[in-house]
Order: sequence, then C-alpha cells, then structure tokens
Amino acid sequence: MPNYEQFSFEVTHQDPSSKARVGLLKTPHGTIETPNFIFCATKGALKGVTTAQAREAGVDIILSNTYHMMLQPGSELVAKHGGLHRFLDWDGPMFTDSGGFQIFSLGHGGVANEIKSRRQMPGFKDRVNITEEGAYFKSYIDGKVHLLTPEISMQVQKNLGADLVVVLDECTPYHNDKVDTERSMLRSHRWALRSLQEFERIDDGSQALYGIVQGGIHKDLRKVSAEFVAEMPFFANAIGGSLGGSTEEMQSVVSLVSDYLVTERPTHLLGIGGFMDIWHGASMGMDTFDCTHPTRVARHGSALVHPNQGEGRGHLNMRNSAFKEDMNPIEEGCSCYCCKTFTRAYIHHLLKAGELLSGQLLTIHNISFMMRLARAVRESIKNGTFEQERRAWGA
Amino acid sequence: MPNYEQFSFEVTHQDPSSKARVGLLKTPHGTIETPNFIFCATKGALKGVTTAQAREAGVDIILSNTYHMMLQPGSELVAKHGGLHRFLDWDGPMFTDSGGFQIFSLGHGGVANEIKSRRQMPGFKDRVNITEEGAYFKSYIDGKVHLLTPEISMQVQKNLGADLVVVLDECTPYHNDKVDTERSMLRSHRWALRSLQEFERIDDGSQALYGIVQGGIHKDLRKVSAEFVAEMPFFANAIGGSLGGSTEEMQSVVSLVSDYLVTERPTHLLGIGGFMDIWHGASMGMDTFDCTHPTRVARHGSALVHPNQGEGRGHLNMRNSAFKEDMNPIEEGCSCYCCKTFTRAYIHHLLKAGELLSGQLLTIHNISFMMRLARAVRESIKNGTFEQERRAWGA
Repeated sequence: MPNYEQFSFEVTHQDPSSKARVGLLKTPHGTIETPNFIFCATKGALKGVTTAQAREAGVDIILSNTYHMMLQPGSELVAKHGGLHRFLDWDGPMFTDSGGFQIFSLGHGGVANEIKSRRQMPGFKDRVNITEEGAYFKSYIDGKVHLLTPEISMQVQKNLGADLVVVLDECTPYHNDKVDTERSMLRSHRWALRSLQEFERIDDGSQALYGIVQGGIHKDLRKVSAEFVAEMPFFANAIGGSLGGSTEEMQSVVSLVSDYLVTERPTHLLGIGGFMDIWHGASMGMDTFDCTHPTRVARHGSALVHPNQGEGRGHLNMRNSAFKEDMNPIEEGCSCYCCKTFTRAYIHHLLKAGELLSGQLLTIHNISFMMRLARAVRESIKNGTFEQERRAWGA
Repeated sequence: MPNYEQFSFEVTHQDPSSKARVGLLKTPHGTIETPNFIFCATKGALKGVTTAQAREAGVDIILSNTYHMMLQPGSELVAKHGGLHRFLDWDGPMFTDSGGFQIFSLGHGGVANEIKSRRQMPGFKDRVNITEEGAYFKSYIDGKVHLLTPEISMQVQKNLGADLVVVLDECTPYHNDKVDTERSMLRSHRWALRSLQEFERIDDGSQALYGIVQGGIHKDLRKVSAEFVAEMPFFANAIGGSLGGSTEEMQSVVSLVSDYLVTERPTHLLGIGGFMDIWHGASMGMDTFDCTHPTRVARHGSALVHPNQGEGRGHLNMRNSAFKEDMNPIEEGCSCYCCKTFTRAYIHHLLKAGELLSGQLLTIHNISFMMRLARAVRESIKNGTFEQERRAWGA
C-alpha cells in the first residue's frame, strides 16, 4: 500500500442540494482549500509572471507537465536541483500530470483539438507509436524518439518531485469508436496498475497518486473505469480522456462519473477550467481544476471579469478602442496589483504599443480573478448559497 | 527665471584626481545619489518588468520618451491620469527627453546608428522635414504627419509631468560636415531659447529644465555650445548629438565638453550607458546616464556580470550550453531576486523552452547589476579609491 501519511483530504462543508463540497487537501507543501484552480507552469514557468507574483496574486497550487519537463531540461537536472519546487521556486502544493495527454496533443504536431473531437491529424502514426509497453514518440524539440511507460512516468514524476502525481493513461481520441475506446480504457487500467506498482516501489511518502477515469463519452465504460479507480489504492481521482465535443456532453460525462467516484477522495477534472465549467464541476463534486485558458488569454490581451460587469460576458478584449480613455481599473473591486495600480487606458496603451508588460499585468489579474472565483464557489457552499451564487455568475 | 525651488544638486564628494563626484540630486519625487543610471521606460513601460519589480531591484530613476508618448497614447491622456508617475506607477524621480533624438533615429525607419555614424537612410527627407519652426515628421505608427516644436515639446513634457525635462534640439548626424553641424547647433541653441521661454511660461515649479550641448565631434563647436548652455538659466546640463563613431571619439568629446560645463549643475550624458562608458563618464564629471542596453540584452538572453567573473568579459549569453547544468546563480554575491532564487540552469532552460520569463528575470538581474555598478562608482569616489575600482572593473 502506498504511504499517504503526509496527505489527507477532509470534506468540511457539503452543499445539501448538490454534490458541491468544500474540502481541505493537505500535502507536504501545505494545505489548500477546495474547490480550487491549479495554474499551469507547463514548462517549469507560469507563463508571463514569476512564481513570486503568482503567490502575491493568491495562487495556491500549480502544475507542471511531465512531457515537457522530461524533454527539456530533463527530469534528472530538475532532481539535481532538489525537484521542481526549488527549480522554479514554488514552496506550495504542486501537481504533475503523467505525460500521456501531451503525447497525444503535442506529439503529433497538434493540439487538444484531437482529443476534444477533431479528426486524427495526418502523420500521427509516424510520430507516436503506442504499444502495450508504453508510448514511443518523437520529441517536438528535436525529433528524437523517446519512450514513456507507466514506470518511466512515475520515475520522471518522482524526479520532478510534485506532491500530487498521476498514473500514465492513454488518451483516447474522441473520434474513436466504442470498441477502440474500450480497448484503450482497458490498457489505461493496466498502465494504471503498473503505475501504482512502480509508485509503491519508489515511494518515500512525499507524493500521492491520482488514478484516472477513462471511457470517453460512453456511460457504461465510464462506470467501469470509475469503479476500477475506486477499487485501487489511489489517493485521489482524476477524470481524463475525451469529455465530448460540447460543454453539454462534457457536463453529462462528469455528472455520470461523479456517481461512481469514492467521494472521500479529492477529484481533479483534468484540463477543464472555464468559469461555467468550474461552477458545474463543483456541483458535481469536482475539487480541483486546471486550464491554460486564464493565462493564455491574458497574453493575448483579454481580461476575465465577473459576467455581471455587463460587458463581454466575463471577458474583456483590452485592445478594444472603447478602453482607450477608460480611467477605471480592469475590474471594479478587484484587489490585484494590476487593478489597484493601473487603468484600463494604461493596459490598452501597452497592448497598442506592443509592450509585453500587458501580458504580465493581465496574467496577474486573470490569476486573481480565478482565485476569486474559486473563493466565491467555496464561500457559497459554506453559506448555503451555492445555487444562488452560481446563477449570479451566469453558470 | 525658472522656479527650481523644489530641485537642487549638491556635490557631496569630489574625487581628488579626476572630475568624478558624488552628488545629491533632489526632485519633488525624491532625491537620488549620483552618479546614477536612468532606466528607460520608452513607451511608458520598463520593458520586461513591472515598476514594482524595478523598485525592488533598486532602480532610483526612470526615463520616458516624449516622441513615443506623444504619438501613443498621447500626452493629454497621460495628463488626465495626473502624469506619467501615476500612469505607469512610478513615485520616484523621472526624466523625459525632448523627442528630438527619436525623430531622427526612429522617424525615418531607423535607429541610433544614423546619429552614431552611419550614413543617412534613404527616404529621410520624405519622413522628416526640419524647419526653423520645428520638425515635421511622419508617425511610425500610422504615417500621419506631426509637428514637434520647442514649444510643443515643453507642453508635451509638461503633460507627461516628469521631474526632469529637456530642451528640444536637432540631433546632427555624424556624417554632416562641420558647416552643417554648426548651422544645426545654432538652430538647437535658438530652439533651446524657445524651449526655455515656453518652459518659463508654463512653469509651476514641478519641473527642472536641462540644456543640451551640441556641436558634434568638433571641439570648437562643442566649446561654443557648452558655453551657451552655461549662460542660460538651465537647471542642468545634458550632452547630446553625435559623440563620434568610436568609444575613443565619444570619450574625447565628453572630456572636452566637461571642461566648459557649469560644474554646480548635474550633467546627463544622453543615451550612453555601457559600463566602461559609465566609469569614464563619471571620471569626466558626468552624473547620470541612460541606455536601453541592460534591459534589451536581458530580453535577448544576456546577463551582465562583473568583468572579473572571468567569463565573457562582463556579459554572459545564457543560451550557451555551458550553462545547461550550472547550479550557480547568474552572478555570485548578487542579491537580486533572480540570483537569490534561480540557477543558471533554470535561466538556460527558460531560454531553450522559449519562456518569456527569462527576459523578466534577466532584466531584474541586469537592473540590479547596473545599480550595483553605480553604487560601486559612488562608493569608490567616497572612499578615495575611484581609480583602483575603475581598473578592477576593467575600465
């Protein structure tokens, strides 16, 4: 059995009319309250801001990607630093994924779209070769062939040293038929077992392991997979794989899976983090979320704001000339460095002038916004106003 | 007479064997010790870092460019914010140039090279038209024709609200012959007078005016110009125009001019700031320097380090694979956020991974380095070790 002594998850508040709950997720690098949002430091850096700025903006927990870190700079170098915490200077809780999703989404030149519904890209078979042993893939950096097995993923994640780690799974593309999805799910289960065995072999109590529920959009497969995860001694649950081609389909899959999860464990919804999704996910008992969206749109000039601000339904394009002489902060009442310090006119000016500082300031705001959203979710659960608050956010 | 009551310059230490001195330059936004380095917030933003990070890295004084700010976002919008201090969040001393240099270096599609020695670029006459009234130029943003006169420069700089402002001058290209250089210098003097008159007309005591010494590389012209500046009621001196095509020529011009300056006034050496130049400039009685070099090279992956670090003569290209597994900070003993927190291996990784954070961290280091250099210059003057310290820096 893995040693999870340094970890715990305690549900402190349960919404009476949904599965939404507030929890305390304890790790060796601190305890976070859930529901919460995990920010992506994909390549060992939060895009656009320092970890110090992220801390100041309220970030509780970050995530790095095994796929990227194993290729550049390599997990041994990170281990030499004492792990990612010291490499990138983050002393709070940290999560790494298994590398599986990235092999599919980046390994063949492209994108989450593949997983999320589009057709397989040409050349995929040349770049990724999945066998029972693991995935052979060509590096996006230099084309060299690498192998990722469940055992290697565990070893790499050990080197990276995140608190929360994930079993290797095969990410089944959306367009696969049910027979292929089931075959893939069963392989993911075998890989999960091998991940668990390797995890136990090298376990020193510093990490906790997430199992992943697969099964695509097929309810019966999702049930089988959720039950498989429930039976294994994972610390926590993650929901992965294709969640369908639409928000409705995604919500339907998450809703179904949530019925079969071990609710004493925390559950992470992989790669999802729109603010509608967070409200819905929370209502289905999801405890953590991650998504590159808030920081990516910041770099492209967009600010996230409460949808009741009236303009742009939660999303302001700061390049819009309407902001040219706007003396207000990006979001009234926001206490982030950007909103306390600068006007919309200044941010607009930076974008027009091509100053990268705009990305930094908008990232700080969007981080702060996401943390405020997560707090709003938690507070509403504690206060028994979850449904009202959710509606107030238009979700 | 202008009202400089809120300003003062006091020499506190004089090096006995050179013109080097330590001074206190007082402005309504605080007092700085000189020699000091002024960081460029060209378009209203320090490239790569927030003003908060710059403050933390030790920056004392920043500079914005009138040319850029008048075109985008326009000085009226800045005035609406209460001036640049509030627009970009800087509560310390601030400097603006007159816009003249930029019209020459950017107005015709390119660059300080023109001023610094290369031939005039084709199309210059189409883009800039200098008359006695002022300079008509096409905006680099949209091609619209703008007019910059001495009076307009003063008004724009008033709107921007920097503490230290500069008369409009004509920047004479290096390749001009002596007759043209003299004609241009005399026009700069007439413009300086008009600048001063307009400055006095709109003066409210919040700004202090710098005169500019012109005259190219011609000693007799430089003498005439320095004497002209000395006779006018400027608060301070600036040395502008072509300083020649080589470091030696530049040092020779600065050295000459320094003999004719009013030494009770602070002197700014416009656009110069290599660390050799700072040591030499200080020895010639220069008090402040500005240059985009430290922050520009940071964005391109280079760290400034003390030349006695042995590698790269004061300049490390962090992309170099020699740093791939280097567990040291960029510069041993540096107390900046970057050096206290991250290894060379991490910075190298960020560059290889294409993470813009590298630019931010290297900018913080390079800022910190320049401030350390300025402190070293001042301390050595105070301690009577100026020459030794200068040699230790290889200057």
